[in-house]
Amino acid sequence: MRLLTLSALLVASVASADEGMWLFNDFPTAQAKQSVGVAPDAAWLDRVRLGSLRLANGCSASLVSADGLVMTNHHCIRGCLEDLSTPERDLLSTPFIAKDRAAEERCQKTEANQLVRITDVTERVLEATQGSSGADYQKKLKAEQARLESGCAQGDATKRCDVVTLFHGAKFHLYEYRRYQDVRLVFAPEFSMAAFGGDPDNFNFPRYGLDVAFLRLYVDGKPRPSPERLAWAKEPAKEKDPVFVSGHPGNTDRLLTVAQLEYQRDVALPYSIALLSELRGRLDEWLKAHPALGNVGRSRLRSVENSLKAQRGAQQALAEPSFFAKLVSAEVELKRKAPASTLAGWDSIAEATKALRGLALEYRLKERGDAFNSELFGHARALVRHRAEKAKPNAERLPEFTDARLPGLTQSLGSQVPVSKELEIATLSWSLQRLREALGADDAFVRSVLGSATPLEVATQLVEGTGLADAKRRLELLDEKAFDAATDPLLAFAKKVDADARAIRQKVEAQVDAPQKKGNELLAEARRTVLGPVGAPDATFTLRLSFGRVQGTATAPAMTTVEGLFTRATGKAPFALTEPWLKVKPSLKAAELKLPYNVSTTNDIIGGNSGSPLVNAKGDVVGLVFDGNLASLGGRYGYEPASNRAVAVHGELIQFALMRVYGAKHLAEELLRR
Amino acid sequence: MRLLTLSALLVASVASADEGMWLFNDFPTAQAKQSVGVAPDAAWLDRVRLGSLRLANGCSASLVSADGLVMTNHHCIRGCLEDLSTPERDLLSTPFIAKDRAAEERCQKTEANQLVRITDVTERVLEATQGSSGADYQKKLKAEQARLESGCAQGDATKRCDVVTLFHGAKFHLYEYRRYQDVRLVFAPEFSMAAFGGDPDNFNFPRYGLDVAFLRLYVDGKPRPSPERLAWAKEPAKEKDPVFVSGHPGNTDRLLTVAQLEYQRDVALPYSIALLSELRGRLDEWLKAHPALGNVGRSRLRSVENSLKAQRGAQQALAEPSFFAKLVSAEVELKRKAPASTLAGWDSIAEATKALRGLALEYRLKERGDAFNSELFGHARALVRHRAEKAKPNAERLPEFTDARLPGLTQSLGSQVPVSKELEIATLSWSLQRLREALGADDAFVRSVLGSATPLEVATQLVEGTGLADAKRRLELLDEKAFDAATDPLLAFAKKVDADARAIRQKVEAQVDAPQKKGNELLAEARRTVLGPVGAPDATFTLRLSFGRVQGTATAPAMTTVEGLFTRATGKAPFALTEPWLKVKPSLKAAELKLPYNVSTTNDIIGGNSGSPLVNAKGDVVGLVFDGNLASLGGRYGYEPASNRAVAVHGELIQFALMRVYGAKHLAEELLRR
Repeated sequence: MRLLTLSALLVASVASADEGMWLFNDFPTAQAKQSVGVAPDAAWLDRVRLGSLRLANGCSASLVSADGLVMTNHHCIRGCLEDLSTPERDLLSTPFIAKDRAAEERCQKTEANQLVRITDVTERVLEATQGSSGADYQKKLKAEQARLESGCAQGDATKRCDVVTLFHGAKFHLYEYRRYQDVRLVFAPEFSMAAFGGDPDNFNFPRYGLDVAFLRLYVDGKPRPSPERLAWAKEPAKEKDPVFVSGHPGNTDRLLTVAQLEYQRDVALPYSIALLSELRGRLDEWLKAHPALGNVGRSRLRSVENSLKAQRGAQQALAEPSFFAKLVSAEVELKRKAPASTLAGWDSIAEATKALRGLALEYRLKERGDAFNSELFGHARALVRHRAEKAKPNAERLPEFTDARLPGLTQSLGSQVPVSKELEIATLSWSLQRLREALGADDAFVRSVLGSATPLEVATQLVEGTGLADAKRRLELLDEKAFDAATDPLLAFAKKVDADARAIRQKVEAQVDAPQKKGNELLAEARRTVLGPVGAPDATFTLRLSFGRVQGTATAPAMTTVEGLFTRATGKAPFALTEPWLKVKPSLKAAELKLPYNVSTTNDIIGGNSGSPLVNAKGDVVGLVFDGNLASLGGRYGYEPASNRAVAVHGELIQFALMRVYGAKHLAEELLRR
Repeated sequence: MRLLTLSALLVASVASADEGMWLFNDFPTAQAKQSVGVAPDAAWLDRVRLGSLRLANGCSASLVSADGLVMTNHHCIRGCLEDLSTPERDLLSTPFIAKDRAAEERCQKTEANQLVRITDVTERVLEATQGSSGADYQKKLKAEQARLESGCAQGDATKRCDVVTLFHGAKFHLYEYRRYQDVRLVFAPEFSMAAFGGDPDNFNFPRYGLDVAFLRLYVDGKPRPSPERLAWAKEPAKEKDPVFVSGHPGNTDRLLTVAQLEYQRDVALPYSIALLSELRGRLDEWLKAHPALGNVGRSRLRSVENSLKAQRGAQQALAEPSFFAKLVSAEVELKRKAPASTLAGWDSIAEATKALRGLALEYRLKERGDAFNSELFGHARALVRHRAEKAKPNAERLPEFTDARLPGLTQSLGSQVPVSKELEIATLSWSLQRLREALGADDAFVRSVLGSATPLEVATQLVEGTGLADAKRRLELLDEKAFDAATDPLLAFAKKVDADARAIRQKVEAQVDAPQKKGNELLAEARRTVLGPVGAPDATFTLRLSFGRVQGTATAPAMTTVEGLFTRATGKAPFALTEPWLKVKPSLKAAELKLPYNVSTTNDIIGGNSGSPLVNAKGDVVGLVFDGNLASLGGRYGYEPASNRAVAVHGELIQFALMRVYGAKHLAEELLRR
């Protein structure tokens, strides 16, 4: 990590060689060549970019056959498996193997995006916002982004266009995606094999996760021809092999100032960890008490546990004095060398952070929804805001309600996924209780929300009374007249709390985002002056490429084997093997037992990279990233080459599982077809 | 707080005048006189000391009638109310009012201690440990403490003797208590009135808590004559009146170094907050799913919520940059002025803290029981250790197993309180799951604990299989032969994990406690040199006296009124009035509506002070402390005079409630009898 190694640049350029989630349109080919001996050229980069996909729910994926076959993680499509499950067919406990195209079933909530073009629009954005600051700057920025996005999408629902803010606002790129909304399930192993080792093994290595799933893109009811697909590698990846990860890291914070890092360590992370810890406990006990409703909540629990572990890892990294001291001394060093004109940047950010300390609680509760933990409330708020924003010119709307975002909104509102009213009442009443706890029973907002009722009464009345559990009804309410005529209690509730939510959002934009933005521009200038051309920008859930090698750590090997899986299995969840594995076991040959299972690599990744293809020097698939190790959780703030590792399912294991365990020879062959 | 105000001593001596949880045998009479205009003399101090009681479960109390009547908080005896409840008689939802002595019922778990003598034994301890360090020092210290305690208690089960470590080891006092184990319930209002406002109002002011209960001490089946009781004040406390709190503050950390404060802020508090948050969520959902078993868990939940709020408040105080910066600059200032010979003290503590960072997780899990969250396991461990320790000379035992502590151990093992096996399984399985999560599935200890079973299987097998839910059986097992012949699975389990638990405890004692102790001695010397005679020592759950005044804050009044209670009531929990209050309401006169309800004072208190009498200049009772406000939670690290407030039930309200609301005229009269 650059900040960590300022005072030892030479060492750093060796030690942190594999750091960086690089932009495809600004890839450091020479550095990759020097570090791993491979120099991807423009054609290589284009091919891998087009073979990579983003799943709208926060995952990565890749095109792996000419017939639109898509590879991603099982944990990325667990929601779909739950939605397609019925009392008679539980797709979490049994594998799903479509024997042919007709048997492939649509994942209602899944959308895949392919990045077809990147355009640098920095000049246009800077021009449009020049000379402005504060709320004015935000308004102009939003307006220009909306103009650029609408101009790109042109109302075409098969396109998605996003202006991506890079380097905290030093650069702006326009990303144009092709959207695929008909995505069908092709193959998924049992949940217990995908997540073998469960929460205890999550973020650990050695590891035995078969966290793989296959989908297929459809257009007009037919598989989408995909000549740009990534080929399956002929040679399996071995220790020390150079490997690349092409995917969508969600978020890193490697350019934060010390004031911001302190805020993360002392306020933001402790808040989230406490929140998630309580939610985890509640969901787990709730599931025990409502086994019949289990599927709806289990995926939620899993995602909460995953976030919790990730945030705890990040907090622990910052709590480590030596790690934090390095970040502090890097800042001291940078400030010492920075042009005097840029020093105000740190003050500006400190000011923003101080303001945030005062606003964050209310912001999280009212605007970010911590007080309204309910899917139905989310729909209600979306409808209320859609109604209000649609009346404004496109450029003046909240960014999530511009015309360019309408297709996404429509899809989300139209989702056929059933809602558990019991779980909705449980989480909504809990979050209302937290609201009262956090702001106090005498707070005016709390009183307007609860009146003299209890949180449980309010939640029950809203959830039982609303018609928003019906997707058709929600879509109808996009219409102005239907909305205005509606008497839904949840819509009324969402309307009632909206002014306060918008007010705190505006405060945060004016008092936090604006000075932060201003500060970041000055810091970017300082970094450019002191460090020369900047490296990779912080992750933004947009496509990045990282290079590295297959490699273990001081305490863990580079790979595990099929044999290791059988040794580790205890017969009890989360270490229990499923029937197909127990059945195949006696027939396995020595060579098969030695096959690699999971693999650890030095690639710099983070949450959002789940489902990314692991490719070799040729750009061919050798594995499927599904996790990082514990040390990778500190990767949010910095990359530590000695310990930070990506964790992938080995390509050979995927072939083995399809052919030998699950009887899906046709899929194994489709992958190998050239 | 002294540390905060080093560079502004004059201001400090005014501003923080009310700071300090003072020793009865080292009370700053002149300072009290200057600050609140009252100078308690030796007789005053002796009287108030003897009228004060400590409840063994972590609370304070007072003797308030010549017939052994004891006043404390409802929340201090909630366990007793649960134990005495039956399916037909729920003492949490209905008031308990003993109409005469015969109707008073024994609280099995409650023990009251009266502090009869304090002896300064510093010289003897220093002599015994002179020249030793590390594990050797700890051993000698323990041996001398055990000698002193045994010499004092002389095997008399009605005595309790503790060597109290003050100023982090700069002083040692021997506290001799008279123990009362026959403590009976006399009066308790409904839980919902005692805890009116529930968790939302906890640690808040304005407040309306009737958190009061009366008990009575019995000796040989008769009420204990108590001439030393505190008299009920003739004049009610008014705003600005000087008031004293005599009670047992549990724990403060006002002499921590910055290294230790960072550890608290970044590691210890986040760990506890996450743990308690999850436990809170689990208990709350568990209670919803097991309404029939509710009573067993509700008190547990309440205590978890209380700790959680307290720890969050402490963490938030340290996360506040200005608060922390003051602590840092106070240390810088102290180090600048400290004798060179004492500077090694800070290094020593930093070394201890660094070691603790590496050991804390294992220590908390294995030795402090975070991995074995179960009352039955607690009994099993106590029996296993009792067996092992009893074989050693008294002075070489773990301090909690010396002869002097045997009566307490016997009482705890003999407790008749029923255990909920369902809840035991829920909490034990959860904590075993956390153990595996924290140390990893491959850890040798984890494997020895779980084998190939799941946490739930292990917990179920242990809890279902053990006979330790039977108090009689537990007491039998104190006998060596009975223990050796036992085949109880939980005893076997406790035995199996004991070596690892002891090993990590020894590591902590050698690598953390010992260098910390050494460092603290040097720091104490530095403080004495720089600051002159030291102030009050950190709280140690021993009797202290704090002085202050009845006073509000910038945002809250000094008192609430009966009228305010009726205004605030919503009819819904936790703001619902009970029948007796609703019934009396129409008949109340204007003067009664104006009666004070709760009162806020500047006294410096902390958890453990619950149940402390609030007394006036004469030492007569004017109220009953039951809480602090939110700002008081930062009191763990420093006292902020502008915001830190103790919260008490006003004495007049107690009289009013007994006479007018609960028809307990005989008790009101017993209080007033002179």
